[in-house]
Amino acid sequence: MSEQQQLQATIITIGDEILIGQTVDTNSAFLGEELSVIGIGVREIISVADQRDRIVSALGRAMQQSDIVLLTGGLGPTKDDITKATLAAYFDTELVLNEAIYAEIEAYMKKRGRPMMDSVKSLAMLPEDCTVIRNHVGTCAAMWFERAGKVVVSMPGVPHEVKDLMNRNILPKLKETFDTPSIIHHTIKCVGLGETIVAAKIESVESALPAHIKLAYLPSKGVLRLRLSGMGTDEEGLKGEVKDYADQIWDIMHPKYAFVNGDANKQLEEHIGELLLEREATMATAESCTGGAIAAKIVSIAGSSRYFEGGIVSYSNALKHTALSVDMDTIEEFGAVSEEVVTQMVFGAIGRTGADYAVAVSGVAGPGGGSKEKPVGTVWIATAHKSGRIFAKRYQLARTRAINIALTTNLALAQLRWQILELV
Amino acid sequence: MSEQQQLQATIITIGDEILIGQTVDTNSAFLGEELSVIGIGVREIISVADQRDRIVSALGRAMQQSDIVLLTGGLGPTKDDITKATLAAYFDTELVLNEAIYAEIEAYMKKRGRPMMDSVKSLAMLPEDCTVIRNHVGTCAAMWFERAGKVVVSMPGVPHEVKDLMNRNILPKLKETFDTPSIIHHTIKCVGLGETIVAAKIESVESALPAHIKLAYLPSKGVLRLRLSGMGTDEEGLKGEVKDYADQIWDIMHPKYAFVNGDANKQLEEHIGELLLEREATMATAESCTGGAIAAKIVSIAGSSRYFEGGIVSYSNALKHTALSVDMDTIEEFGAVSEEVVTQMVFGAIGRTGADYAVAVSGVAGPGGGSKEKPVGTVWIATAHKSGRIFAKRYQLARTRAINIALTTNLALAQLRWQILELV
Repeated sequence: MSEQQQLQATIITIGDEILIGQTVDTNSAFLGEELSVIGIGVREIISVADQRDRIVSALGRAMQQSDIVLLTGGLGPTKDDITKATLAAYFDTELVLNEAIYAEIEAYMKKRGRPMMDSVKSLAMLPEDCTVIRNHVGTCAAMWFERAGKVVVSMPGVPHEVKDLMNRNILPKLKETFDTPSIIHHTIKCVGLGETIVAAKIESVESALPAHIKLAYLPSKGVLRLRLSGMGTDEEGLKGEVKDYADQIWDIMHPKYAFVNGDANKQLEEHIGELLLEREATMATAESCTGGAIAAKIVSIAGSSRYFEGGIVSYSNALKHTALSVDMDTIEEFGAVSEEVVTQMVFGAIGRTGADYAVAVSGVAGPGGGSKEKPVGTVWIATAHKSGRIFAKRYQLARTRAINIALTTNLALAQLRWQILELV
Repeated sequence: MSEQQQLQATIITIGDEILIGQTVDTNSAFLGEELSVIGIGVREIISVADQRDRIVSALGRAMQQSDIVLLTGGLGPTKDDITKATLAAYFDTELVLNEAIYAEIEAYMKKRGRPMMDSVKSLAMLPEDCTVIRNHVGTCAAMWFERAGKVVVSMPGVPHEVKDLMNRNILPKLKETFDTPSIIHHTIKCVGLGETIVAAKIESVESALPAHIKLAYLPSKGVLRLRLSGMGTDEEGLKGEVKDYADQIWDIMHPKYAFVNGDANKQLEEHIGELLLEREATMATAESCTGGAIAAKIVSIAGSSRYFEGGIVSYSNALKHTALSVDMDTIEEFGAVSEEVVTQMVFGAIGRTGADYAVAVSGVAGPGGGSKEKPVGTVWIATAHKSGRIFAKRYQLARTRAINIALTTNLALAQLRWQILELV
């Protein structure tokens, strides 16, 4: 399909805070990815201030150059939020009280025991001539305008509200409204191996891909998404073709590195939960440099109480001793960041919680605390089963504190996966 | 100073990966902040694909609407990087070999033991009629064009190269070239109170603001940033004026809710660390529904080992008992999400770690686990000092699991702040 025929969208993000750099605009990246997944090209991303003339100018241009315009931001109850009034004027309609939304907001505020102030009431004043889309995770409704075959959608600027509105309503409605071509995406997720090494391993598959199937490498904090995207008219045939290439990659990368074949939304921590549930097993954590981030990831999955006992954030050496029974002499002799200490930590966690599996980490997250033998980024990770099986490995990272912690968290989960699957 | 008189810039970020959401554009936020600090307004941020017509169209618009245009991206050695050729054609000049840059690149590659391939040599082909700015941390030079009193600067897309080029050369050169006005930003951060209630409390200050000083509400996960922005010619006078309004807001909101007056980069967890360091005190955590997220926030601050002992993620009731000495009968009688249990948890954490302060949380993060008396979003937070002073409070949230956890984390830190400051 040529570009001329492809549906085009323009994304407009509204907010002074974006222009002066106090907020990094992450909504655009999310929207760009979601649109491309359903075969809609993004012509341009424009960020403008909360000013009527700026919004109008960007909107005019966007409507000229594309079929779809997605706006975020400027819908709040405060004086600087003017998107709604601007759109009503632009599309020559009035702001009227939307009874259904008013009732929603009233219930929402009541549930939280908050007063129904005038500023909150104003959220239910919405353009008459548009389709109002209810916001299930916030108080600012979205608006869907259709004019001359083009669609303009205005959403609030809060990222999780944008995500919920898109997934629940706007993407399905876009697919329904426009005749989008068939695009088949298939995602394989890997962990525990760098992007360049993965690329070398699957080179034969990649070079054999036909022109209408593309492969994207999408690394994030140690987890690598490999996304195959095929475009065509025969949806069923395309599905089979994409799946065939995906299976070839899967056969090379699984079981050691690839953990998801097809379900793009499945997180590594959710996969770990499934492995444990299948085995009716439980787990625990013992964390030093990650400070609770591994446990927090496990708990981010609903229902994790079925397999997660809990964890110890033994940041001080004293707590490593009192809560995890790490020997003070071992810390003295080998240092807190050592194979000996993480080994005692991981068995301490199993002993303390009664879990079947545990993971323990100790490292130098930085920026301070490094030495010649153990520079910033040195991390020891131990994983173990209550039977006594244990695997400990040293990793050498070298980034900022935040990135070192995020990488360590995923590496720890990757190693725990190997432990559960008996791959180490 | 009216807006018409303010220097205006447009930022253009170039790259297919931005439009399809594979890369979050962080350069724009950096450039926006740096420009606003030297009093240059950002008219618009535009992201376009690596396509000649798209770049030319954005550039034409940008030059029409602003005095300064900053471009990033598309300067690499691969085929899809076409910014340089596009600019040379647009400004009617030729790409010629720049001897000085060639020598720089040669030395750069030699130092890293990499070969001088043709693609690398092409990096020294630069427009004849422009000022070439050397890149000290990479191989793509920047280009400074001046046409009809306007300045267009093209930089590579790698964020740390953009930062180095801006700080070392481009910002000083912009200040030298233009007579920049003064813009003063001042941020106050609050926690523990919703945006609409804060707005009501400071309404008198907000309505008294003169036209050249604006107030923005920037909420994120329970923490609210209030940003005052003033523009004028008399920098010292303006500073005083903005500070005066900021102090009026501070006086209303501090100490209970406002915790930062001026330092926009200071996080709540960093502030907690400072309060503890001032008192030479330590803290610990006992977490159930947040699963380690509070501890992880504390540990995200470099140097937190000076005041953070560690924590217990007592996800299971058994671990609440064995690690925090919570009475099993109490859990039986009142449930895990109760004032009685968090009270025992918080003192259990102090007892276990020897910390001066502790914070404990237990709640129903959702989506399951709710009941009529304790629906999803019910959270109990207890904070205590080792002397026996304790404060426990019930909160009612009602969002998704991830947001409930994020909000609870910040509310727990807010309550810990009250505890340390003896405001409860």
